[in-house]
Parts: sequence; structure tokens; C-alpha cells
Amino acid sequence: MIVALAGGVGGSKLVLGFSRVLPPDQLSIIGNTGDDIEVLGLRICPDLDTLTYTLSGRVNPQTGWGIGEDSFACLEALARLGAPSWFQLGDQDLATHLWRTLQLKQGESLTRVTANLCQSLGVEQNLLPMTDSYVPTHVLTDQGELHLQEYLVREACCPTVQAFKHTNIEKAHPAPGVAESIMAAQAVFLCPSNPFISMNPILAVPGLRKLLIATQAPVIAVTPIVEGRALKGPAAKMLQELGYPVNPTSIARFYQDFLDGFVLDARDIQLREEIEALNITVITANTLMESVEDKIKLANRLLETL
Amino acid sequence: MIVALAGGVGGSKLVLGFSRVLPPDQLSIIGNTGDDIEVLGLRICPDLDTLTYTLSGRVNPQTGWGIGEDSFACLEALARLGAPSWFQLGDQDLATHLWRTLQLKQGESLTRVTANLCQSLGVEQNLLPMTDSYVPTHVLTDQGELHLQEYLVREACCPTVQAFKHTNIEKAHPAPGVAESIMAAQAVFLCPSNPFISMNPILAVPGLRKLLIATQAPVIAVTPIVEGRALKGPAAKMLQELGYPVNPTSIARFYQDFLDGFVLDARDIQLREEIEALNITVITANTLMESVEDKIKLANRLLETL
Repeated sequence: MIVALAGGVGGSKLVLGFSRVLPPDQLSIIGNTGDDIEVLGLRICPDLDTLTYTLSGRVNPQTGWGIGEDSFACLEALARLGAPSWFQLGDQDLATHLWRTLQLKQGESLTRVTANLCQSLGVEQNLLPMTDSYVPTHVLTDQGELHLQEYLVREACCPTVQAFKHTNIEKAHPAPGVAESIMAAQAVFLCPSNPFISMNPILAVPGLRKLLIATQAPVIAVTPIVEGRALKGPAAKMLQELGYPVNPTSIARFYQDFLDGFVLDARDIQLREEIEALNITVITANTLMESVEDKIKLANRLLETL
Repeated sequence: MIVALAGGVGGSKLVLGFSRVLPPDQLSIIGNTGDDIEVLGLRICPDLDTLTYTLSGRVNPQTGWGIGEDSFACLEALARLGAPSWFQLGDQDLATHLWRTLQLKQGESLTRVTANLCQSLGVEQNLLPMTDSYVPTHVLTDQGELHLQEYLVREACCPTVQAFKHTNIEKAHPAPGVAESIMAAQAVFLCPSNPFISMNPILAVPGLRKLLIATQAPVIAVTPIVEGRALKGPAAKMLQELGYPVNPTSIARFYQDFLDGFVLDARDIQLREEIEALNITVITANTLMESVEDKIKLANRLLETL
């Protein structure tokens, strides 16, 4: 079984690739929930939703998140009422949040709710939230402390980042199935997701990093940085503002304590020795996934190395 | 100032009439909240919404409730997810319920939330919920006890009615402004709304019936029954199943203890003496309000009698 640790848009690209080349019961995905937010009384799990919408073929191909051809009648009406409307909520997407929130209120765990949603949407892979606890990531910036989504969406990533806070994380546990999946895996892949806001929240769940050290399976990270730029989102901006070189080596260093392999883009081949010096095996590949074929190709390339 | 006690679709017809002939600050409406329901974790106030949508010109003219040309993308998505979807929720309508629910959760009273919604929608009349408490009407039927909306919508009024229960009503109080409005009114009108599920919940709020007895203003009911049929909804079916004659006299008797005047449809003129025998002044009028002109005409006719 292959385990993929994934954030949202970037991570779901590789997850889609894996899903096309592995039988569904051979793929477990541990999704980031650090970007979860409560908006309008609804519990929203953007990364989990991006993963389920992607795996069920419903995702908006233009944005990589949300539902394709969704309408925004409710959001527009909320704006007219003077209600908070900065968070993009499509009408169909809203159904997911309403149903999740109701089930959570009725005492179901996020793991169970996620499984229910997967089943309704026809997603057969094993999608697990990293934890059942609500542990929203906050961003400390030059404009104060913001919820991650306020930083990403409302402030369009403009404030300068100083640090990240994974709230309530100290009391969280890995969700049921997470430890079992990692320990039983043939390989664990860290998808090309933002290290600060997608991977670190997963790694910050108490016990999770130790599982990655303890598992017999190789743990392999796919670079989210190619030629000094992020595949998607503000990873490069964050690296820079926090004083790290904007390159794959910085990423490899973050995971050095548990990493066996690092997938470097062929365009960055000159960094191979620098990363190998960290005692990490380097695999080169074309990591830019624009088409579905690219995603399948990368997934196949990664599986070949095992 | 004129005070109108109103349910939903039937009541809002006369309320619209009044709103076209009175300055906004001369009309207070006390709306039924006995048909309120919590669906999908949202607090829905169908009668209050019908009144605000009607007064703001947004109401669906085909149904008399909901928002005109609303879409149902969220409801259809909920159905696909296997979530409860029997209660009709348009996408724009949903914004009202989300915003109301959030404000209530933040500690605002229903009175305050209703005022906020009126302001956002440009409704200048004084719309008050009958109470700030949640007092849902339950219907005891041959198929068991149902929430009123389950009876009306999910079961399409099919079960035979045995009795009504106004849950939690004993602890409720009239909402702020209700007593003041009734005591200061020039006249209080009971709109042509269903006696069991629109008027009785209002009258069941402790203290409210006494206010109608105590006020100096004439209290005048407009018949919801014309020629043995209900203007709208299941009033005739309910009268019959509960063993009352299906005629305006039954309605007048319900309100006999506080009623000064009764507006009888001209088509039922033969019942005039029967109702006058209850010591109630009878006013005749055309009470069928199909066009806006009909509504204005009836409103003017009622105001002339004062």
C-alpha cells in the first residue's frame, strides 16, 4: 500500500496520478486539516474537499479547488445581507460543508464524516484526515495574527510571514487509521505541497513524525519548488520571508530527520549532491504536472523507484 | 399605528396591502414563529421570511414563499450526498438562514436578527417575531407526532390531524416590542391566516391573549375561510378533521374572548347574524386577494371601518 501525505491543490495533482495507476485499496491519503476553518458556523476542510473533488472528478479544472461549474447564488445573497462573504463558497460546495457540519454536531468524527462523503461521491481510496481535532493553522505576520485562510484568501497572501502556529495541536492525536497506514505502507510519499501550511501541520500532530521515522517503508518527498519557484501558491514567498534559500534543498532539510528519498526536478539537477550530502537518496523526474498524463507519468516514475 | 398578526403566505397578502397604503412607521407586524424549524443545523423561520421577502418585493410570485427565480443547486447537491433534502431551500434563501443562524449563535435575539435582515433587505415596517424563544408547533396525527414542517412539507398534509402542541410555549414571553405595539395600536388585525398553525401559536404565547383583551384598540379578524374553503393551505382540512364546521363562524368562535370585529367575505353574507350573535361586529368585504390591487383594496376597506 502507498501512503500519500497531501495538502490541497498541489498535493491532489500527484494523488490523482497515483489514483490512476494503483487499485483504490492500495492508496491511502493522509490529508492536511490545518487549513480547516469555521465560516458562517460551517466547518470547512478545504484540503480534504480538494482531494475528494479531485478524486471524484468534480473539481473545478480552472482553479484546482471547488466544484466545476458551481454557482455562487448563496454567497452573492450573503454579501447583499452584509454577512461575511470573503470565503469563496459555491452553492454545491456549500452542501458538503452543511452536511459535514451537521454530522460533526451529531457527534460523528471527522474521519467518519470524511469516509461518508467519500462514499457518497464515489471516492474509493482511503482518505484520512491527519487528526480528528480542530487544529487551525495561524499565520503570524507583520499585520498581526491571521487564520491561514484569512491570510490566503482575504489578504491574498500579501502580509509578510513571520511564523506559523498550529493551534491546539499539542492535544491532537493522529486520526484512526493514520498510524496503521504509515506502519503498513510500502512507501510514504510527501506530495509536492507547501512545507509550512500543508506538510508541517501534518508533521506537527504529536506522534506523526515518529511514525515516519519508525516505519520500515521508505519516506520520499516530492519537491514543491522547481527552478526557484513554487509549483502552486505562496511557498516561495514564505521561504524567502522566513530567510530560507528558495530551493529544493531547503525543503529536503525540513524533512531530513525522517526522509529516505527526495524527488528533485530534472531542471534542478545541479542541487543533487547538496541534497545527497544530507544522506538522502535523490531521484530525478519531471515534477511539473500540467496534464493528467504528466500526473500519471510522475506517479509511475515514483512507483518504479521502489 | 396598525398592528397585524400574520402567518406566512395568507397573512402576507393582507400585510402587503397594508404596506402599500400606510407609511412604514405606521405598520407593525407580529409574525408567527411556531412554524420555525431547525434543518441541517440552520434555524429557519418560514413565516418571518415570507413576510420579509414579500415586503421587500423578493418573494416568488408563483408560490408566495421563497425568493423569486431562486436556484436550488445546494439542495440538489445535498440530495446527492444523502443529506436530508425534503425541506425546500433555495440558494439565495439559504443565505438568510445561514446568516440568521450565525447571529443567533453569536447571542443575538431573534428580534434583533429579524430587524437586521429587514434593514439589509430594505423592509422599513416594524416586523417582530411573536417571541424570541424557539417554540415549534408539533402536529399530533394518526401517523404520530410530527414537526409542523414535516406535516406540511414532507408529508404534504396527508396525515389526519388530532391535535396541536406548541412546544416550550409555557416558558416563552412576547418578544420586545410586541406588548407595546398592541397596547399603542389604533387597531389590531388578525390576518386571514390558518387559525391552528399561524394564529394559535401567536395567541399561545403567555400573556399575548390578555394583551388583546386589554388593548383599547379594536381587534379585528379577517376570515381565512370563504365559501367553505381555505384561502390557502390546509385550514379547511384541519377544521374538518378536528370536528368543526368548515365556515367563518368556527373561526370567529376561536377568537370570541377578545374579538371586536370580524371581516366576513361578502359571499358568506348569510352567516352575518350567526357571528353577530357572538357579540362581534361584522364587516363584509371581498377578502379574496389575487392581485396586488385586491390586497390594497381590502387594506383600504379595513382602514375605512376604523
